[in-house]
Amino acid sequence: MRNILVIGSGKSTSYLIKYLLDKSESERLYITVGDLSLSKAKKIIGDHPNANAIPLDVFDVTSRTEAIENSDIVISMLPSRYHIEVAKDCIAYGKHMVTASYVTEQIQSLNNAAKNKGLVFLNEMGVDPGIDHMSAMKVIDRIRDKGGKMILFESFTGGLVAPESDNNLWNYKFTWNPRNVVVAGQGGAAKFLQEGKYKYIPYNRLFRRTEFLEVEGYGRFEAYANRDSLKYQDEYGMKDIQTLYRGTMRRVGFSRAWNIFVTLGMTDDDYTIEDSENMSYRDFVNSFLAYSPTDSVELKFRHALKIDQDDIVWDKLEELDIFNPNKKVGLKKATPAQILQKILMDSWTLEPDEKDMIVMYHKFGYELDGKKYQIDSTMVTIGEDDTYTAMAKTVGLPVAMAALDILNEKITTPGVQIPILKEVYEPILNELEEYGIHFNEKEVPYLGYNPLNQ
Amino acid sequence: MRNILVIGSGKSTSYLIKYLLDKSESERLYITVGDLSLSKAKKIIGDHPNANAIPLDVFDVTSRTEAIENSDIVISMLPSRYHIEVAKDCIAYGKHMVTASYVTEQIQSLNNAAKNKGLVFLNEMGVDPGIDHMSAMKVIDRIRDKGGKMILFESFTGGLVAPESDNNLWNYKFTWNPRNVVVAGQGGAAKFLQEGKYKYIPYNRLFRRTEFLEVEGYGRFEAYANRDSLKYQDEYGMKDIQTLYRGTMRRVGFSRAWNIFVTLGMTDDDYTIEDSENMSYRDFVNSFLAYSPTDSVELKFRHALKIDQDDIVWDKLEELDIFNPNKKVGLKKATPAQILQKILMDSWTLEPDEKDMIVMYHKFGYELDGKKYQIDSTMVTIGEDDTYTAMAKTVGLPVAMAALDILNEKITTPGVQIPILKEVYEPILNELEEYGIHFNEKEVPYLGYNPLNQ
Repeated sequence: MRNILVIGSGKSTSYLIKYLLDKSESERLYITVGDLSLSKAKKIIGDHPNANAIPLDVFDVTSRTEAIENSDIVISMLPSRYHIEVAKDCIAYGKHMVTASYVTEQIQSLNNAAKNKGLVFLNEMGVDPGIDHMSAMKVIDRIRDKGGKMILFESFTGGLVAPESDNNLWNYKFTWNPRNVVVAGQGGAAKFLQEGKYKYIPYNRLFRRTEFLEVEGYGRFEAYANRDSLKYQDEYGMKDIQTLYRGTMRRVGFSRAWNIFVTLGMTDDDYTIEDSENMSYRDFVNSFLAYSPTDSVELKFRHALKIDQDDIVWDKLEELDIFNPNKKVGLKKATPAQILQKILMDSWTLEPDEKDMIVMYHKFGYELDGKKYQIDSTMVTIGEDDTYTAMAKTVGLPVAMAALDILNEKITTPGVQIPILKEVYEPILNELEEYGIHFNEKEVPYLGYNPLNQ
Repeated sequence: MRNILVIGSGKSTSYLIKYLLDKSESERLYITVGDLSLSKAKKIIGDHPNANAIPLDVFDVTSRTEAIENSDIVISMLPSRYHIEVAKDCIAYGKHMVTASYVTEQIQSLNNAAKNKGLVFLNEMGVDPGIDHMSAMKVIDRIRDKGGKMILFESFTGGLVAPESDNNLWNYKFTWNPRNVVVAGQGGAAKFLQEGKYKYIPYNRLFRRTEFLEVEGYGRFEAYANRDSLKYQDEYGMKDIQTLYRGTMRRVGFSRAWNIFVTLGMTDDDYTIEDSENMSYRDFVNSFLAYSPTDSVELKFRHALKIDQDDIVWDKLEELDIFNPNKKVGLKKATPAQILQKILMDSWTLEPDEKDMIVMYHKFGYELDGKKYQIDSTMVTIGEDDTYTAMAKTVGLPVAMAALDILNEKITTPGVQIPILKEVYEPILNELEEYGIHFNEKEVPYLGYNPLNQ
């Protein structure tokens, strides 16, 4: 038997562990799931004969090193900042490692050590980052192999609610860490390239400069820019790229309404609100509006944001019950972002029988023999319920497949890396197809960034 | 002779040094001016017999300690972050110290040492902070002395251009560090109290939630909120205050136009613009607008900000020449804020014969014998030219007066402090009157925060 240690048994590990357990007989795998909560780890493996659950505190050196030493490969599904403890042990005991998280400087600094020991440290193996890298590099490599030169790359991902469970005016529910949704876009201007021009969008404009995207069979989406588009120029080796833009997808209309929270300051996470515990939702809203006791909070709100009475954004706000004077915030020393998150979770939490959806959209523009071409590639995955979500599937399956491919020596290139090598993306994308994770490609006329100008 | 060491001979020291030189015979003063630039220090003292200029690098321990040891009192007009080096020496050699800067934690930590040695460390002795503290505490103490209870305190200061030199559409010129003007309001939400309610304004709304103020003889002004209003509750001892608001004054219309720069992201100081050196003013503006080569930068700008053709803000923007394709930025690796500052300095620099203006406006609301009262107090000071500015006068004179009062043992309370003690503000405010710095007080009906509700 080959021993796989999975650290963490949170929301995103349902499919990951199911995949490994399903393969445990044929592939002779023994799965150890370690979590701070032993009961959580036990629950996820059930009574499977090829698995056991252990209590694992990543800061308890003895139990951590023992578990790592006894494994052949380690999958860390902990929050990103904890990976480094695990990674150092993997170097010390000579174990491969897989994560779904962005490569931090700390992890990158282990590159030489991993290479010297012949260890594969494969990161960004989830959906975004993960499947986006693999599906993009597959097309980019194909374009390059036939002599094409990349001139445009745009890539969009959204974690959304499936059409069959889409029953609120925002067309949105939380399918991932709600906190990340509330503070999305903060921390600096978004920066990208459009037809050779660098463009910058500050946070307060981010949700007003969206693009529209049409996905066959699923209708229209919008996307706002991610902060970090330019780093993909190096990562994907696209030196001469003219347009480089990465974004986050929402249903059309989400961003315009979300921008209201941004404008009022309700997404701020840098200070705490006085007496937040005892304030009502209405008090919270009022604290961002001018003092004027003879005017209603509603009128002050409409006036400040210039919202017409018949504007749909108003219905979106009312749906969230933000003007309720009786619902209490109930959070001590909370930031505006924490309070807003609490209010949104009342409305945007997936019910047990509801389904989520992952949508991905890539545009590849290239030049070949003096002509310009474009390929659009889209992927949609729908979840089964609130445990076997599309998010857990698209994050967990590639991680699990990568771990198995490393054990089976299909993936052998050592060092700290992300899934941009053919050795990694080819077998995994093929296997993901078997699980219904499929990209639709089509050739479209090259429109460049601004189709209206062609 | 008593030896006064003045460290720094920048813009704000013209009146300070003139005052001390003028008093040097009658008060037996000898003034030593130390500056990194010996020629600058020499220029400011001229050939006055009771003064000398020395080269002084605050990080050169030998020359710094020697100069401090030879003085009876030290005035530090250095940028705030350098005071601590001087302050430590003042403790070591037993010298009093005066600055015009906010008390930092480092300076505050010397409080006990200063007290133990009987040294006066008087800070925030300029105009704002400085004259605002003194003029406010004078009224607050008077109200308290007759048994009144403070319920409202609003205080506004503006460094502006004098009416006779007010010849641009913004009604504004730089009279102080332009950088501070460009990044004003950044770093966190503004927080204040209105009729017992805490209110918060994020940066992107700060310049849209102004108040109007009328100053007799000078017309209408507007004010946007400062970040730190609440700290004055402790500093001035106003425990039960219901309304507490501090703001920065501009001429009406400035903030609405300024908000355009904020909205587009042009005041951001956290990242650098690609190839900033070679871009034109027009390129700079365009980098914050959508890519659309068939549309003019002007139209994209108007559309993004929803600016009507006949809106005066458009004329304000054109006056700054921001759409000029030929003027180059010429700054390497510059942030948006640095580039904007450069563009503004083309238009907003005070000419040698032009005059600046300091305006201050306090509102004091109080309760006495069950009735509510209000006192409004205003001060306007006009400069003489671009050297003897109102800014230099209102910053420099109180600093100089305080130094002399300490030498003459009129101010004796030891420790790190700001000018809120009667011992400090009474003689200095009286003397400032002689120099034309005068507050007009009037009793007005108590209106509370929102006059329309009365």
